[in-house]
Amino acid sequence: MTTIGESLQRVDILDKVQGKTVFGADLSFPGILYARALRSNFPHAKILHVDVERAKRISGVVTVVTGQEVAQYGLFGMTIKDQPILAVDKVRYIGDPIAAVAAIDEEAAEEALSLIRVEYKELPSIFDPVESMKPHSPLIHENMMDYEHTPVAIPLAGTNICSHFRLLAGDVEEGFSSSDEVFEDTFTTQAQSNCCMEPRMSIAMIDSSGRLMVWSSTQSVYAVLRGLSELFKIPQNKIRVVAPPLGGGFGTKLYLKAEPVAVVLSQRSGGRPVKFQWTREEEFTVPTMRHPSIIHLRTGVKRDGTLIAREVKIIWDTGAYAETGPLVCRNGSFSSPGPYKIPHVKVDGYCVYTNKIVSGAMRGFGLNQPMFAIESQMDIIAERLGIDPMEIRLKNAVEEGSISGSNQKITHTALKRCILEAARVSNWSDRQSLKAGQSSIARGKGIAIMHKGTITPSCSSALARVNGDGTLTLLCSTSEMGQGAHTVLSQIGAETLGVPFDSVNVISSDTDITPYDRSTTSSRSTFHMGNAVRLASLDAKNDLLQIASEYFEASLDELVVEKGIVYPKDRPSDGLSIEQLIKKHFGGAGTILGKGTFLTHGGNLDPNTALGDVFSVFWMYACVIAEVEVDMETGTVKVLEVISANDVGKAINPINCEQQIEGGVLMGLGYALLEELLFEKGKVLNDNFTDYKIPTLTEAPRVIPLLIEKPHPDGPFGAKGIAEETVVAIAPAIANAVYHATGVRVKTLPITPEKVLRGLKEEGLAR
Amino acid sequence: MTTIGESLQRVDILDKVQGKTVFGADLSFPGILYARALRSNFPHAKILHVDVERAKRISGVVTVVTGQEVAQYGLFGMTIKDQPILAVDKVRYIGDPIAAVAAIDEEAAEEALSLIRVEYKELPSIFDPVESMKPHSPLIHENMMDYEHTPVAIPLAGTNICSHFRLLAGDVEEGFSSSDEVFEDTFTTQAQSNCCMEPRMSIAMIDSSGRLMVWSSTQSVYAVLRGLSELFKIPQNKIRVVAPPLGGGFGTKLYLKAEPVAVVLSQRSGGRPVKFQWTREEEFTVPTMRHPSIIHLRTGVKRDGTLIAREVKIIWDTGAYAETGPLVCRNGSFSSPGPYKIPHVKVDGYCVYTNKIVSGAMRGFGLNQPMFAIESQMDIIAERLGIDPMEIRLKNAVEEGSISGSNQKITHTALKRCILEAARVSNWSDRQSLKAGQSSIARGKGIAIMHKGTITPSCSSALARVNGDGTLTLLCSTSEMGQGAHTVLSQIGAETLGVPFDSVNVISSDTDITPYDRSTTSSRSTFHMGNAVRLASLDAKNDLLQIASEYFEASLDELVVEKGIVYPKDRPSDGLSIEQLIKKHFGGAGTILGKGTFLTHGGNLDPNTALGDVFSVFWMYACVIAEVEVDMETGTVKVLEVISANDVGKAINPINCEQQIEGGVLMGLGYALLEELLFEKGKVLNDNFTDYKIPTLTEAPRVIPLLIEKPHPDGPFGAKGIAEETVVAIAPAIANAVYHATGVRVKTLPITPEKVLRGLKEEGLAR
Repeated sequence: MTTIGESLQRVDILDKVQGKTVFGADLSFPGILYARALRSNFPHAKILHVDVERAKRISGVVTVVTGQEVAQYGLFGMTIKDQPILAVDKVRYIGDPIAAVAAIDEEAAEEALSLIRVEYKELPSIFDPVESMKPHSPLIHENMMDYEHTPVAIPLAGTNICSHFRLLAGDVEEGFSSSDEVFEDTFTTQAQSNCCMEPRMSIAMIDSSGRLMVWSSTQSVYAVLRGLSELFKIPQNKIRVVAPPLGGGFGTKLYLKAEPVAVVLSQRSGGRPVKFQWTREEEFTVPTMRHPSIIHLRTGVKRDGTLIAREVKIIWDTGAYAETGPLVCRNGSFSSPGPYKIPHVKVDGYCVYTNKIVSGAMRGFGLNQPMFAIESQMDIIAERLGIDPMEIRLKNAVEEGSISGSNQKITHTALKRCILEAARVSNWSDRQSLKAGQSSIARGKGIAIMHKGTITPSCSSALARVNGDGTLTLLCSTSEMGQGAHTVLSQIGAETLGVPFDSVNVISSDTDITPYDRSTTSSRSTFHMGNAVRLASLDAKNDLLQIASEYFEASLDELVVEKGIVYPKDRPSDGLSIEQLIKKHFGGAGTILGKGTFLTHGGNLDPNTALGDVFSVFWMYACVIAEVEVDMETGTVKVLEVISANDVGKAINPINCEQQIEGGVLMGLGYALLEELLFEKGKVLNDNFTDYKIPTLTEAPRVIPLLIEKPHPDGPFGAKGIAEETVVAIAPAIANAVYHATGVRVKTLPITPEKVLRGLKEEGLAR
Repeated sequence: MTTIGESLQRVDILDKVQGKTVFGADLSFPGILYARALRSNFPHAKILHVDVERAKRISGVVTVVTGQEVAQYGLFGMTIKDQPILAVDKVRYIGDPIAAVAAIDEEAAEEALSLIRVEYKELPSIFDPVESMKPHSPLIHENMMDYEHTPVAIPLAGTNICSHFRLLAGDVEEGFSSSDEVFEDTFTTQAQSNCCMEPRMSIAMIDSSGRLMVWSSTQSVYAVLRGLSELFKIPQNKIRVVAPPLGGGFGTKLYLKAEPVAVVLSQRSGGRPVKFQWTREEEFTVPTMRHPSIIHLRTGVKRDGTLIAREVKIIWDTGAYAETGPLVCRNGSFSSPGPYKIPHVKVDGYCVYTNKIVSGAMRGFGLNQPMFAIESQMDIIAERLGIDPMEIRLKNAVEEGSISGSNQKITHTALKRCILEAARVSNWSDRQSLKAGQSSIARGKGIAIMHKGTITPSCSSALARVNGDGTLTLLCSTSEMGQGAHTVLSQIGAETLGVPFDSVNVISSDTDITPYDRSTTSSRSTFHMGNAVRLASLDAKNDLLQIASEYFEASLDELVVEKGIVYPKDRPSDGLSIEQLIKKHFGGAGTILGKGTFLTHGGNLDPNTALGDVFSVFWMYACVIAEVEVDMETGTVKVLEVISANDVGKAINPINCEQQIEGGVLMGLGYALLEELLFEKGKVLNDNFTDYKIPTLTEAPRVIPLLIEKPHPDGPFGAKGIAEETVVAIAPAIANAVYHATGVRVKTLPITPEKVLRGLKEEGLAR
């Protein structure tokens, strides 16, 4: 292989470091208008009246629109159609849009907003999902049972529970009866903001032929296409959605965000381009964030550490609208037993409305919460039983042919190799907690493992075009958002066709140009789109070889394509470049086209037990070992080193995998120690990067990425996705390391100095 | 069939009549600069010095560039690389660009132009191609023999002849010897301007990743792509060429026109978008126009009218640069013997440089000139031999299995049916010339036939995408320029897949999106791209049927797709919509892709005799009968009625065919009677629509289009191209009608009142 396995420089990197990349915020069009939205100040209130008359009279304002005026479009939503374009009868969180303005500049739009008068009647608000679940709680969506919803959302009538997921495998009560010990713990996790460097935006306009054009910072142009088509009742081929390169996504740039408001404003402005660019404050206060959760965990074990039974109850605080919540609830709850062999399992997941900003997809998609709980409890169990934390994981971890706690038959896993390799590199067997001495610094190491599935079933299609000069163009809807997907896809295309890496370019994410892809999410692009690109390139190569076989009078299997040259195996010196072959065959010029579609099957789970089908076409696995220092005086945790051994299948571009691991470490470290959206009566208090802390280079630990290769037979060249592996396991590894260093077990994320100090005081260890 | 053969409304027509279509002139981008070119005032001169210093100092001017500064790129050209981006050492026609300016508005650019000083040294100029061909004529391109050229251009050393074409079939001298009579005539044709309503333009910019983006009013995005790639030495996938809808093309919007200057100005302006929009005056005075020609014709016949031998010598005045000239010379000369069986033929075509604006492609592509000559002489022969003009054509016209005068074996012709049908509808057998009586108006009818091949070999590729909602998107590089191509392609796609016509949309002419097409020229789109679209739609349909066959448990041949519904033949009520099938198969959403490439073979003629291969994959044929009134006092000719019977293969959209015929009648009428670029020492005198007359509704005759269907086995649903059929035969039909009315034979186009009056005087008939 010539390009697969090579750490080639990312195709987008030079433009990015030189500041040349054109993001959505940089886009403009002649006659463009600027949109702003008036957002609710109340977490839950009836809208009595909206007066926009004074706003309309501001010079430069082209249109002002209220919820009532676009109520005819009804509701939209990814899993449950519960969300209006603009609030009609009531608002459900602080940030719910009520009215919107398009004006010739942002100042006029802002001034108009300030002149809109809204009369509210406050309603009782609920911020705590446990309260919200209680019977007779005031309903946030009175008509929930009338909403259109997908099978993934199973709402409970008369409640604020918009989705209930249940997994039943084995007989959990019998499991607990036959266990030697039963452990019961409750963990909670916080609201985390996605914190994309690029805020979300959308530009909508109506072109001269009446087609709706939308530029959008989205991870799925096709989800936006379908969402707008359904919402506005416009045929799909009368809409074009284009995604510029994204400055991060992490799940929040999925489905409809800024688009519906941009579209209605454009429609009301004679089709002029309308740009709805969210501010940093909106990034923090309007959808979506990572679900806060409460996890009740009960685990039955044999005295030798063998897991026998596990019961998980997770409450997912999904905020004011469902969005991806029911899917996060389903997928996160399904996988919550962890990557372990456990015969008896019961899981209940509840996705619960509250009067807060909407929770949604974020890197890890529902695994970060339960894996923090599971992996923290594994250490609690290990300690009680006197077993090494690494050994108890090795003992119970899934392996080839295992039935996992989620009742899935496991194949193609390198999890145990990940555990062993991480342990070896960290000298795990020699680990000792350095108790605080003179310096008041304690040191410890913690381990955690993780697993995660990918969205199944799902489909990716690609086109490959061999151009007249022998270069290769790949057309696909995978968004480049900093993850390096276009580099990996270029490598797959180059390797498959047999051309140099630098003669490949990728054109992406434009529904007029690039074929269907479900989304750039769920660590699926290398596997799914990689396969689609491989199939498309292979299809093009077959056509190329047909042409060559006529020219060389050789059969297809006698022909080789290498570095852009085609030759018969036995006559390498007779080779012709692809360019020459195209010129000869097409009488001057032509292109060779290839198409590829990769479709996975599964996900058809029994609605009562979640059994009966393949949940994921591949599983991600990783083992993380974190070493921390804890300042016993301040409670501050400093992460010194993170070893992350990842089951990658096959690393198409090793340095790219390593960078994914590094990014995962930092995002996981923020989740573990720093990040938390703070609310006061539903209002976000820290809607900026001064008050909301994310890790910077100061907090960055030494990262040792270990790529464990066990080729997946269905992956392109054996590759699996890895983007979400490391991030999921960081918080529990750090929590376990803090415990190892100090003896303090923090069960509530983030692990702030205050919580550590409180723990030290409780243990009588504080200095 | 549900859509093929239906006169469906053109998909682009509403936008066009409502003024909504966005043409190139309407495009703008933030930070755009406006380009203007300083053009030579001398037809032939050495450039001694160009001073741009004062121009550079004008406020708003961003860059000024001279030929010397871009001389490193060398020369470009479609058949002969003889043309610099900007003149370097000398100018060769009035209009040759010398320097160019990019400025923030057109006024600043114009002002800068006015301040550029050029010192010339005049050189002897040649405007007459006969003079130019003479030995020892001053050379317009001293280094012609060093130029890179394609095989179609065979220059003669030491001359101004940039291409000599020869056809030798049979033994022409023996043919003349065995003839009963030999006719010899000389005809001349004029310079005709393409007169697109939309002037040419190009916008070039360099995007953030360094790729060159070009929007261009071009009939072939791939010809521009390849031309710019070769000229600027940029890989093809680092360039993107997009063509907006065109306001006419007719051949002049082919290859590089405004693009190279736009590109160099953008390169020198930091990649900013630079728009080079030609003025109406530039449309008239810079490339290209229809070749003026001189045609010597010698024809030997038997007494019964049988054609025995024909010798044609055509001098093509190609102007200052070769451009498509050698190809026009080759194709026009090759087909110049006409659609007749003639055993002995000799043709010599000379493509000759002069110091005038460049001639190039224009609807008919080299056939309008010789067919005027041939069809005029056929009437001269018929009269001398006492044979009816219709009968002499019927007697000699090619039919199935004939060997034509160009030595081609003829198949799939409906020419004789065209002649008979036109004659029947016009009551030809009863025709009588109405000699002028009291009213001084004479009336007569003339007939002419035509043939024309299409560019062979050539290639068209297309993609078909069945969208998630069952709509069909076709991606192809066929430009919509008013000819209705997108409507016809939509019909072919809809019929092939089995979906309603209005669920199809066409995306076209963007080299990042749409696959290779040679060009939207040569009446080839319905045949070539129609086939590519048919193959792509069939490919998608096959994939759709695979999916359906699993669902219905039926074999492929038991399945029907009709109006977007798929059903097993024996269970029509079980049908599922394509949308439903996609949702089921792809687990929610997906697209089905189809690809199609259509490649024709031939054109590999012997360079000495032009024999030995298929010249054209199909031949166009038509018969035109024109009825005219001639005012014997003023010489003015008024065309009353034109009957055009056209061999269409199969009319995909009959009204569209009829509109092509109507357009051809008007353009042919202009050529016959009105249009002529007038030169004085190389300077165009009538560079505007006041002085250059094109037909308007006032001149429009009654048109009776007759579509003669004889399906072509290789055409999509039997269709052939027809866009150039009628236009070629109008001038000779009118010339013959004028003769029939008045007895005046005008051998020099256009047939102006002055020429008719002079003829009447010579015949003693003037009143």
